[in-house]
Amino acid sequence: MGLSGELFIGNERLRSGASFRAIAAATGEALEPAFFAADVVMVDQACRLANSAFAAMRTVSAAQRAGFLESIAEQIMALGDALLTRAATESGLPLARLGGERARTVNQLRLFADELRLGGWQGVRIDPALPARQPAPRSDLRQYQIPLGPVAVFGASNFPLAFSVAGGDTAAALAAGCPVIVKGHPAHPGTSEWVAQAVIAAARQCDMPAGIFSLLNGESYELGAAIVRHPHIKAVAFTGSRTGGLALQKIANERAEPIPVYAEMSSINPVVLLPGVLAVKAEALAKEFVASLTMGTGQFCTNPGMVLALAGPDLDRFTASVADTLKQIAPSVMLTAGIHANYESRVERLLQHAHVNVIARGDAVTSRSCGRAALFSVDASAVLRYPEISEEMFGPASVLVRCRDLAEMLEIINHLEGQLTATLHFNDLDIELARALLPSLEAKVGRLIANGWPTGVEVSHAMVHGGPFPATADGRSTSVGTLAIERFLRPVCYQDFPDSLLPAMLRNDTFVNYPHRYDGEYRVAAADSATESS
Amino acid sequence: MGLSGELFIGNERLRSGASFRAIAAATGEALEPAFFAADVVMVDQACRLANSAFAAMRTVSAAQRAGFLESIAEQIMALGDALLTRAATESGLPLARLGGERARTVNQLRLFADELRLGGWQGVRIDPALPARQPAPRSDLRQYQIPLGPVAVFGASNFPLAFSVAGGDTAAALAAGCPVIVKGHPAHPGTSEWVAQAVIAAARQCDMPAGIFSLLNGESYELGAAIVRHPHIKAVAFTGSRTGGLALQKIANERAEPIPVYAEMSSINPVVLLPGVLAVKAEALAKEFVASLTMGTGQFCTNPGMVLALAGPDLDRFTASVADTLKQIAPSVMLTAGIHANYESRVERLLQHAHVNVIARGDAVTSRSCGRAALFSVDASAVLRYPEISEEMFGPASVLVRCRDLAEMLEIINHLEGQLTATLHFNDLDIELARALLPSLEAKVGRLIANGWPTGVEVSHAMVHGGPFPATADGRSTSVGTLAIERFLRPVCYQDFPDSLLPAMLRNDTFVNYPHRYDGEYRVAAADSATESS
Repeated sequence: MGLSGELFIGNERLRSGASFRAIAAATGEALEPAFFAADVVMVDQACRLANSAFAAMRTVSAAQRAGFLESIAEQIMALGDALLTRAATESGLPLARLGGERARTVNQLRLFADELRLGGWQGVRIDPALPARQPAPRSDLRQYQIPLGPVAVFGASNFPLAFSVAGGDTAAALAAGCPVIVKGHPAHPGTSEWVAQAVIAAARQCDMPAGIFSLLNGESYELGAAIVRHPHIKAVAFTGSRTGGLALQKIANERAEPIPVYAEMSSINPVVLLPGVLAVKAEALAKEFVASLTMGTGQFCTNPGMVLALAGPDLDRFTASVADTLKQIAPSVMLTAGIHANYESRVERLLQHAHVNVIARGDAVTSRSCGRAALFSVDASAVLRYPEISEEMFGPASVLVRCRDLAEMLEIINHLEGQLTATLHFNDLDIELARALLPSLEAKVGRLIANGWPTGVEVSHAMVHGGPFPATADGRSTSVGTLAIERFLRPVCYQDFPDSLLPAMLRNDTFVNYPHRYDGEYRVAAADSATESS
Repeated sequence: MGLSGELFIGNERLRSGASFRAIAAATGEALEPAFFAADVVMVDQACRLANSAFAAMRTVSAAQRAGFLESIAEQIMALGDALLTRAATESGLPLARLGGERARTVNQLRLFADELRLGGWQGVRIDPALPARQPAPRSDLRQYQIPLGPVAVFGASNFPLAFSVAGGDTAAALAAGCPVIVKGHPAHPGTSEWVAQAVIAAARQCDMPAGIFSLLNGESYELGAAIVRHPHIKAVAFTGSRTGGLALQKIANERAEPIPVYAEMSSINPVVLLPGVLAVKAEALAKEFVASLTMGTGQFCTNPGMVLALAGPDLDRFTASVADTLKQIAPSVMLTAGIHANYESRVERLLQHAHVNVIARGDAVTSRSCGRAALFSVDASAVLRYPEISEEMFGPASVLVRCRDLAEMLEIINHLEGQLTATLHFNDLDIELARALLPSLEAKVGRLIANGWPTGVEVSHAMVHGGPFPATADGRSTSVGTLAIERFLRPVCYQDFPDSLLPAMLRNDTFVNYPHRYDGEYRVAAADSATESS
């Protein structure tokens, strides 16, 4: 199985005049082959084809889309471990981690396939006609959700499988019925090409219209901008830096027709250690914390970048234990030289900061592009005065915030920007303190974690991987879990149409087979209801 | 019951240094009393109070909020017909229409109260823990929807009750648990003051926290801008002009923390007359069309501003019949002198247009600020070339587009901007034509109407009053009907929390009482399920 470096525009493979190479994260070596970079003509071509595919998707049922998602999962598995090897070389991530990420990637494709078959995502609401109502009759009104149109997905560097070409955003958009144009991340173009091959093979196998999927590679800012500016693109999904996300949002807002941007950008995921649990578990918590902090060289959106606790001997024990553990952590290679340089400069800024103390660094033995862990300590009052202390350092670095009392801890929490997660460690003695903090924590985040760690995101129905700005550009949604499908849908109402002209899902003999509302009443699918009564 | 002209900041009545007066729409006379205009200090005061109220709302149950909404409805009715008289003087709208609008206003408050009690709006999803799962256990995950925070509502001039101080946006935001700051429309400040009195009376009666509602009057652009810029405001709802909506969206996007803007702006609501029905019902359709076009002097967002039909003798009969009927329509007073002047200039532009013919005007007898109806006719090819022909003329004016064939009709439809509605008239002979047009029509609108007229919007569960840009700033939602509550909510996930620390709605003995998803399965409330099985 070879790599050609060509682009995918629908089912066509294309070459262009410009190219770039993947860089092996660990060695800095340029890898074979050269990858062609898409130009603006190709952007237009892919977007037009996606728009034609969008029209053609009207005749493709949700069940067929479900089959397509499952086929993508199969085709990805059929790529075998060569995919993982290439991803490991490009990203520097360990094979075991990438094996887990592949499992997550195919699981989320299958989860969306199941979700499509349940049908509740279409949000069917039927208000039957009331011809005799006074003072005026009511029309027959039927609502469902339809796809927005072609979606631009920006692959993320830190999940070359699960948040990239066929990752969560692509799965959700395809599930919704939206064609997808992926702007491939230049850090893993080989991984991208193979996954794109899998998607295209699945599309052919399942008779999807050409243009349902395209992959445009490239290194330039202008490529991404051209995709977001294209009038056929109706929504954007992005995972990456705050700078990158805000730039795309600005472009989207300045279009003649503004479009939604779902950008997951920046989070320091505060972890609060309450005194009761800290008194009895300081050392165990320290070990768990370091494991969460340094996992994947800290390159998770949910990395615990801030710890809040009350100053005192228990916190000192926790701190000492973290320092002991952290010193033994060998630095590991980061995703790209750029990410490494950015990490180093953020760490350096805190090392030089007059109000920040360094508590511990990871093991000093380091090689090229390796991220050396760092734990800082600071008084709460400094956090309020120096906003740079609360800025994300993408990598294995965290700031321990010493609070005088609960009031000061609450002040810090209220002062924080929006976050993906907040974590609370407590035991029975801390329940009232936890209760006092929870409203403020909830106001800041998309997910609250009790006595655990923020890294590790379950792909399920109840998961929220989102949160208020700047954690994401749009806190009204999630990028992980089945709720993500709603980002790519909008409601439409049919008034007084005969059954023969209604969309399939809204017809009299069909809607009862799906969860729906009838005159406001919540009803499950007829089959489930029958099972319940039996 | 008198009017004081004072502002409402929470439960306080305030005066300021500047004031303005309402103008009687029909006479141009300045009305008593003077109304105080809010300044930026008052904006800050109201927003801070709203933010405190938002925190306090956490301890207010959905059932209490439902009672509050019902109490507002009662208090509005208790204002009696003096409210309607004042609204009629300020807006120029007839008393009978305003009586109907009041009924709609209180009905939508009550509908949201019922919706709150059903509980499905909280979107509860429970993924139970799977401690034995391999390779890793699953946490207990519980998702629900929480309110965004204080919402700014901009009252609309054309619905001084149903889209103003206690209108649909206010009802949806309060239902969601968001405090509301209304920027009162300067065309009906007396109506606004009375309705605000009703809201505040209800808030006191139901022990709502001070700041749950404020009314800031004023005529300046800067007042609205200051409200949207305030950091405590977390969403904006607006109904009005495209210029106004886009200006607010720009301000919201330029904030340090961008916020969602739900602006309902501009729509010409195309009506398609297919040949089969036109052959047999041309005269009846003409009468119905003129009634829809001129109702409320054409000042509805859903006014039919464009009619598409195939050129030929049947269309000529329709056109002649419209002309006959329209000539008998006496011009009626428009909402404000500004709206009237804008209407006149838009009509004048088409009167002067080289490619547009005027077919008929309303009766020439006109008095101050009266909108004289106008029907224009144009060849489809001109619509494609001159975008001004498809621009909204807010008032009783419409453009009849003569198409050569179905292909040209489809080209016009595909060329249109986003719309609130599209209407299709057809009979049995037209079914296949209707089927061919529906996909293109659906792609443009929030609501499709069969053999009816777009004016008249049912407040119910299945209604969609929204649509792609520029009909609204955010086509993913509706401003009418129960789905509107979702505009002011965002999801949060609780991971592994003990029952005692979970929000009430997510506890083990509670969530079963509401429609929810359990491990992905759709379930109705336990009581409903029990009824079904019995």
